[in-house]
This record gives sequence, structure tokens and C-alpha cells, in this order.
Amino acid sequence: MTLYLIGIGLCDEKDISVKGLEIVKNARAVYVEQYTNVLQVGVDRLETLYGRKVEIAAREDIEKRGGEIIASARDTDVAILIVGDVFSATTHSDLYLRARQAGVAVHVVHNASVMTAIGATGLSLYKFGKTASVPFYSSEHPVDTPYTILSENLLLGMHTLMLLDLDPKTRRFMTISEAIVELRRMEERKENHIIRDNTLVVGCARLGCPDSRIAFGTLSEIEKIDFGKPPSCLIIPGQMHFMEEDVLRTFNREL
Amino acid sequence: MTLYLIGIGLCDEKDISVKGLEIVKNARAVYVEQYTNVLQVGVDRLETLYGRKVEIAAREDIEKRGGEIIASARDTDVAILIVGDVFSATTHSDLYLRARQAGVAVHVVHNASVMTAIGATGLSLYKFGKTASVPFYSSEHPVDTPYTILSENLLLGMHTLMLLDLDPKTRRFMTISEAIVELRRMEERKENHIIRDNTLVVGCARLGCPDSRIAFGTLSEIEKIDFGKPPSCLIIPGQMHFMEEDVLRTFNREL
Repeated sequence: MTLYLIGIGLCDEKDISVKGLEIVKNARAVYVEQYTNVLQVGVDRLETLYGRKVEIAAREDIEKRGGEIIASARDTDVAILIVGDVFSATTHSDLYLRARQAGVAVHVVHNASVMTAIGATGLSLYKFGKTASVPFYSSEHPVDTPYTILSENLLLGMHTLMLLDLDPKTRRFMTISEAIVELRRMEERKENHIIRDNTLVVGCARLGCPDSRIAFGTLSEIEKIDFGKPPSCLIIPGQMHFMEEDVLRTFNREL
Repeated sequence: MTLYLIGIGLCDEKDISVKGLEIVKNARAVYVEQYTNVLQVGVDRLETLYGRKVEIAAREDIEKRGGEIIASARDTDVAILIVGDVFSATTHSDLYLRARQAGVAVHVVHNASVMTAIGATGLSLYKFGKTASVPFYSSEHPVDTPYTILSENLLLGMHTLMLLDLDPKTRRFMTISEAIVELRRMEERKENHIIRDNTLVVGCARLGCPDSRIAFGTLSEIEKIDFGKPPSCLIIPGQMHFMEEDVLRTFNREL
């Protein structure tokens, strides 16, 4: 039988594909992984649409019980649901690798990801460089990786997507304002002069949802905005084509 | 009313989301754009699932009739279906911009894209740099842009996704072998020594489909493989983490 890794998209229960829904309805066991991202609806809404019990699995559960889950997929169909697309987190790549190495059939059903939903800003997806993750502040372990990635991307005119930290236990999500504070701290430590008050940035929240919000402006302007519910992300554009700027400017009004 | 831009994913009629399907069933007019990519099934299969007439629109049609389509979305719900995710081509960004500028409500329903489906290779999506497009050979206008992008990405250890050209009129799709020939031509012109017989590359075909194929090996090895039906793409990895290589090596067997 088969281990199905099924992306369920960005917003609610209806973002699953018709194909994914058919598989879920017929699988013996259905898990949903909720570490790496968050939907705008609870698991009860998934269960109602699917007509199935869905077990919530923490990242550690999937890591610890991976062998067991893979073994069970030898005899039955097992579905693991993943918010967004399937391969945005190493946990799932690891599961995929272990299943492939064990000779268990793995079938992937892809879905929307924040990594292409950012196309709604008008910025060309082809021109993004490496993706950065901004972690919560730690005085013991200050992290400059996002700043280094941004510096390198800017050097080549590439746009930079910054994904913001979350703590699954406390359900705390980093806001765009908090991320900007972290970037300012990195600027103080590294002094490449790439994070300034007038640096143009794009703040995005709930991409893929009807109440998504995109705002384009200077760092100081965007820092003051309350984007509401998570998840959110921050983009720092590199060199822009005039058409990219034209689309972005339509998001100025929201300031 | 609303202009809906709806991604329909990578493989067949069942890759549309449950939400997208509901919108299509209720829209007054439904268009599908078939320039930028290709599904594995014909429009008849879409029509059967949707229970609706679907009008095929060439890229030029959408560009020429954009104003008319946007105007019609003032009074009725209009759906434009796009293979993959919505913002992979400038045509759709342009339509989105014009609708936003005209004050017409635009709603985007995201879906899977080749740009994240490549996660199935094991390569980390966070470590990809700019995306390159390899055009068909023209002796009058030789193009080196993909080679330049690759050089820059490699400099920073980034992976490079290369999308391959297609001619929508003749339904001709560039194969991975043809793309490698083009890259060798660019190497002869530019001589950065980044395209060699033993350069490690990943060939992918029909990502997101049950018969998808991924093969990892040297340029000379991958060049000899017949990947079958389109679409296909080529990836040139930059610096790899051992886990990325572990997953990639499971695709060695297919050589």
C-alpha cells in the first residue's frame, strides 16, 4: 500500500485538491502535521469535510513515530496532511527519504505554498533568491543568517522572502513588526547598511485567504501596521522591473 | 462581481482544489489558459468534472481580450484557470494588475507549482536562487541569460531551476537533452567552466503526476535519458547538505 504526503494548502479545509480529498476518504489512517504552519480553521472543519477522524501530530510525534507510520503504510494506505505544499520542512523530506529507502511506496499530492503565493504581491517568482527564516530573539544565540542571506541576494538584485518564527507549543507567531525589530538588531551587529528606515519592504499576512493583506512601503511605515492574524511574512525586494513596481504600488493604498 | 484567477495544479482535472471547483461551477464564464504550461489531460476531462463549458484561451487572446474579460467581471463572476499556480507568468500578473487598477474585485485561488514540486527531489526549496528559462536555439539571437543566472547562483551556493521552452502553436516542448545541448553551447561562448560532462544535475519530468520521473547524475548521464512526455525541467544543484544528497541518491537507481 502507500504512504500519501498530501499538501492541504494555505487557508481552510476547502484548499485540499479533489484528488487529495479522494485519497483521504479512502485512507486507513489520516494525520495532520501542525508544526510548520497554521490553517485559519480547526481540525474539526477538516474532519467534517473529509468525513474522517484526523489525528493531530506534533512535529516530534512524526519524527519519533516515523518508522511506525512508514511500517504501517506497507499494509494500508496512510495519509499525512501537510499545511501548504509538502516539502517546505525537513521533517517531511526526512519521512519521504526513510520511506523511499525502506522501499515503501510514497505518493505526493502537491498544493499551494507561501513560496509561490507571494506572486500575488506582483514580484516575479523567478527573481527570488534564497529564502530566510527569522528566529525569535535570543540574547545567548544571536542569529545573523537572515541578514547574510539578504545581503547576498541583494548583491545579485534578487528578492528575499523572510519566513517568520513560530512556537507551536505556545501558539506564538512572530509578527512583521517583531521581525523588523530583529532585522534592525542584525543591522546594528553587521552594519552592511541594508536595513534602513527607508528600505522598501512588503508585508504579507494570510496569503491564500480571502482576508489576505499585502502592504508595500518603507520599513518604518510597514513596522507600524497591525497585520492581524498569522501567518505573516516579509519580503525585501531586490531590483524591480517597472511592472513589478506597478503591481506593488496598488498595495500602497492600504497603508 | 469577481474575476477569479484559479490555479489548477500540475497533472489532471482532479488537481483543482475543492474551493476552486465550487467557484468554477458557479462562474458565468470559464477560460483556461494553455500557453505557459500543459496538463496531462485534455480540456474535455476538465469539462466533465466541472460540468461546465471551458473556453481555451491562447496567451494572445488573454492579452488582447483582457480589457473585455475584466469589464465582464464587473457584472458576473468570471474564472480564468491557470495550469500550476497563478503567478508563474507575466500574462497573469498583467491581468491582475489591470483588474486591480480598474477597481474590479480579483480573487486568487492558489495551487501547486513546479517551483515547489521540485521539493520532491530532496533539494531544499529555501536554497534555490533565481529561476532560469532555457529558450530554443536561435543562431541570430543566441541567449546566455540562463548561463549567467546559473553562474551567479553557483557563486553563492544556490540551486538553479531551469524551465524549458515550449512552442504552444506546434505543441513542441524542449526536452532535457535539448536543454543540455543549449547549456553546452553557452559554455562554449562564455567559458566559466560550470557546464562540464561531470557536472551533477537533476532531470525531472511530469512533477506532480503519478508517472513523474526524477533522475540524478552527471550531465552526460542525464543527457542520454528519454524522460518521456512533457513538461520537464532541469536542476543544477549548488552546495548540498548531506540530507539533500541522501534523497537525491535514491533517484540514482533510475539511471
